[in-house]
Amino acid sequence: MAVGASCDSVSGAFDPVVLHPIGVVRSPFARVEGMPLQSVAAREVEARIEFSPELAPGLRDLDGFSHLHLLAWLDRAPTDRGLEIVPFLDSVRRGVFATRSPARPNPLGLSVVRLLAVVGDTVHVPGIDLLDFTPVLDVKPYVPTFDRVEDPVRTGWLETRAAEVERVGSDDRLSGD
Amino acid sequence: MAVGASCDSVSGAFDPVVLHPIGVVRSPFARVEGMPLQSVAAREVEARIEFSPELAPGLRDLDGFSHLHLLAWLDRAPTDRGLEIVPFLDSVRRGVFATRSPARPNPLGLSVVRLLAVVGDTVHVPGIDLLDFTPVLDVKPYVPTFDRVEDPVRTGWLETRAAEVERVGSDDRLSGD
Repeated sequence: MAVGASCDSVSGAFDPVVLHPIGVVRSPFARVEGMPLQSVAAREVEARIEFSPELAPGLRDLDGFSHLHLLAWLDRAPTDRGLEIVPFLDSVRRGVFATRSPARPNPLGLSVVRLLAVVGDTVHVPGIDLLDFTPVLDVKPYVPTFDRVEDPVRTGWLETRAAEVERVGSDDRLSGD
Repeated sequence: MAVGASCDSVSGAFDPVVLHPIGVVRSPFARVEGMPLQSVAAREVEARIEFSPELAPGLRDLDGFSHLHLLAWLDRAPTDRGLEIVPFLDSVRRGVFATRSPARPNPLGLSVVRLLAVVGDTVHVPGIDLLDFTPVLDVKPYVPTFDRVEDPVRTGWLETRAAEVERVGSDDRLSGD
């Protein structure tokens, strides 16, 4: 999708950026079918992140944290769905940025995962909703003071639907448009 | 930093990925000095995201949500700090992935921000801890069912320090190593 280049006054801010994966997800999910919809629905799944070995020093102290934010590159997400999609939990077209669909302009995945153990260059994260071999771009410690919203939270079209992810899979979330 | 290329068995998972910014932050912060350390410390700051105009259809329905995850490219973060750093709130070297430092292998910023209004291709987000003209890579609705950890949370070396971000600026967080 061609984005940017339309704001010449913002010099450089729309230039493409290049990221180098720091690791790779290993999970039981070879295909999207049957994969949990969000990590909250995958608590019992055994999974891990295998870091690039030279990055292992960056993992020091990580094991003091109980939860991580995992930023991944959803390399197998559809790229042809446009800017309005029908989310899996819905029957109405929504702006893609108002959804958690992987079929978005930059297919970045954001999950909160529980940290079980750090062993060498491997981080064990049970409960993950990502395909095997998904590239990992960053991990950050989950810190409630920064990350947890305590105010009343409005969740728009998802208001009544978010809880459903704990009981449904993703059999056809990518087969709609 | 050269990462990847060391896991030949994982074909493609360590290949560089290219992202195209979807928008740009406009904030009062031209420089890092004095900028809040996290968005929780910047609640009263007037700021906005100006999206690439052709992406405006993707913003439909976003205004139903009270909070967003904002993923940004920290284009002015230092790139020479290595894998162990002394975080601003600490005096001990920590693995960079156990910190929220912007000086990380892929300088991705993750903030939870309050959504005030969506006007055309502009999203008003008071309370932001990002420099003016920071490229934005993605926004996602904040959904407590997915994003809020309710279990007891361990926060390692940050245990007693996270609350301090609400009273300190970032005058020298990038001047240490």
